[in-house]
Amino acid sequence: MCADYKVTAWEVSGIIDYDKLITEFGTSRLTEELKERLRLKTKSKKLHVFFRRNFIYSHRDFEKILDNMENDNFYVYTGRGPSGEMHIGHLISFLTAKWLQDEFGCNVYIMMSDDEKFCVKNNLSLEQVDKQSEKDFKEIAAIGFDPDKTFFFKDTEYIKHLYKIALQFAKKTNFSNARAIFGFTNETNLGHSFYPNIQNAPTAFEKNKFCLIPAGIDQDPYWRIQRDVAQKIGYRKATAIHNKLLPPIQGMDGKMSSSDKKTAIYLTDTPELVKNKINKFAFSGGRPTLEEHKKLGGIPEIDVAYNWLYILLEEDDKKIKEIYTKYKLGEMTSGEIKKILVEKLNSFLEKHRQNKEKNKNLIEKYKYTGKLAKEMWKL
Amino acid sequence: MCADYKVTAWEVSGIIDYDKLITEFGTSRLTEELKERLRLKTKSKKLHVFFRRNFIYSHRDFEKILDNMENDNFYVYTGRGPSGEMHIGHLISFLTAKWLQDEFGCNVYIMMSDDEKFCVKNNLSLEQVDKQSEKDFKEIAAIGFDPDKTFFFKDTEYIKHLYKIALQFAKKTNFSNARAIFGFTNETNLGHSFYPNIQNAPTAFEKNKFCLIPAGIDQDPYWRIQRDVAQKIGYRKATAIHNKLLPPIQGMDGKMSSSDKKTAIYLTDTPELVKNKINKFAFSGGRPTLEEHKKLGGIPEIDVAYNWLYILLEEDDKKIKEIYTKYKLGEMTSGEIKKILVEKLNSFLEKHRQNKEKNKNLIEKYKYTGKLAKEMWKL
Repeated sequence: MCADYKVTAWEVSGIIDYDKLITEFGTSRLTEELKERLRLKTKSKKLHVFFRRNFIYSHRDFEKILDNMENDNFYVYTGRGPSGEMHIGHLISFLTAKWLQDEFGCNVYIMMSDDEKFCVKNNLSLEQVDKQSEKDFKEIAAIGFDPDKTFFFKDTEYIKHLYKIALQFAKKTNFSNARAIFGFTNETNLGHSFYPNIQNAPTAFEKNKFCLIPAGIDQDPYWRIQRDVAQKIGYRKATAIHNKLLPPIQGMDGKMSSSDKKTAIYLTDTPELVKNKINKFAFSGGRPTLEEHKKLGGIPEIDVAYNWLYILLEEDDKKIKEIYTKYKLGEMTSGEIKKILVEKLNSFLEKHRQNKEKNKNLIEKYKYTGKLAKEMWKL
Repeated sequence: MCADYKVTAWEVSGIIDYDKLITEFGTSRLTEELKERLRLKTKSKKLHVFFRRNFIYSHRDFEKILDNMENDNFYVYTGRGPSGEMHIGHLISFLTAKWLQDEFGCNVYIMMSDDEKFCVKNNLSLEQVDKQSEKDFKEIAAIGFDPDKTFFFKDTEYIKHLYKIALQFAKKTNFSNARAIFGFTNETNLGHSFYPNIQNAPTAFEKNKFCLIPAGIDQDPYWRIQRDVAQKIGYRKATAIHNKLLPPIQGMDGKMSSSDKKTAIYLTDTPELVKNKINKFAFSGGRPTLEEHKKLGGIPEIDVAYNWLYILLEEDDKKIKEIYTKYKLGEMTSGEIKKILVEKLNSFLEKHRQNKEKNKNLIEKYKYTGKLAKEMWKL
């Protein structure tokens, strides 16, 4: 792996060469042809901005889904590790899952990996992790999934239904394999080293369908081990679509971090705090002086405000192109882009908070009483 | 460890130097003084033959139990790995647990480690292990535990109640520790390496009491890791009493094996089969000719028939002494001892089978509906 950046399931740092990751991880590029096939199968006949802007850019076996997508041939599985407050980067895979559910009516399974976070984070107790899990469910419920087609579960609570599948994966994976894929060492604790099997269990929830996992490219090692083992134990290989990582506020390298509050916008950040963070910390592609900026133009590619608009917040293709051009030509300043971003972010967060309040009562359905949840507990 | 024999949680072979194991494992000898203290606290004022004959011979922290035993300060935990048919050697710890329950009224928890056996035995499916588990529960129910003070559970079924405790142990044990204690290698699969944490979970079932584990000395590595970690995570160190291993039919070295049917008497062996196995295979301490035998006397110490009578089947101290003396003096032949053994074994097995039939209806209570079982499922 290139020395300048590092992407594992545990750590992301440096400026990421996403094209190179496709080669290193052995995934496939999500080509324009595949995206067009996907678009034609949607109800809306329009791709989500993540696809249109190549933020979701890589896949494993997505053709298999496309081949028979209209016949309810897949379900979606994604999850959340409840180790700290959620920021906007954490919503990416849920937003993708929601879009897939809206367009194709598929079931969505959302794992809260409280077991993993307890084992990986030295200072967290089971009680603390559980408290965070419940908080996070509220944020995820705000996305507005179909309460009869969506199942939220915490690993420690749903373990009875995960354990037997996890054991089957575990039996076929030895410490050498896990070390090669996850970088485990002799200091890795036994809870941490068992966890990948739990994370793989939901890939066998619906045996007659494909499991499609929308997740960050950094999570691919899990699916690699799943795909190595699945067919040996009578399950289908998981399929995946990989998104890039939302860059942190300070610059295009690395990943937002729950532990460094300045690197991300949290779902609970106030409008004032959002404004301050962006104005103070957002890495700019503008020039040192206004004069230079007008003469040379800005560099949108490295401008975090521009990138956030591009990836997440300005879905209008015309408008984003206009911003790009004006900024590039020096007709728009870095401050102006930041202003647009702050407004967009705050309205996004305001809507999120309203939805969170509105959907509070759905959590019980997602977890226990909705149609899918009931079926999953009955198994 | 001495090169002539090997005792780990996975493998027992060679002639075992039990005294040396106390030093190697760092356990304590169960002294005459401790046994007398135990005897004085029993209802019957009589020790079980396993204690009287030093078959249970080693312990960890048993003094702590003795200090306050009359005040219900402990519970008993033992278990069974359902990988093949049960033989008489498998009953040792259940017989010990039953005696403790009769004398002290303590709760008894019996784990069926279906998860472990599935992970450790390459050729076993979850379905096969489950079938064996249910068969084994019938054998264990024959022991006649108190249905309101005994809880039988399968790991995969009761996992929700084991998992959180197991995670706490797992978080504090890394692969180096586990390798040192269990001899895990890079080829050990991730289910096998996680399992010790599951086996340790019941040591925290009753937080205000001591957990006392009657088990073979070969299982001690588990309790060692439990005792290393327990106090760090707010639980008590497990206490244990260790029995020696019932020698296999072929001779005093090693352990009975579920995979070699000639080495053991199975609970389902017919009287005819028992007779044949003993007469054909039981290692004898007799002399090559009757003349020599009468002249030199037999060697009871290496005579398997004598040892089985001593350990398990002839509880009458006078009678066993008489057999020993007569055999030693050459007044009793090897064939005569075998005849006594066959009779005792067959009457033991006959009684076991009757109890198995009689207690069939108790399994539901042990598992789900007895007083203790109900409490354990409510937790």
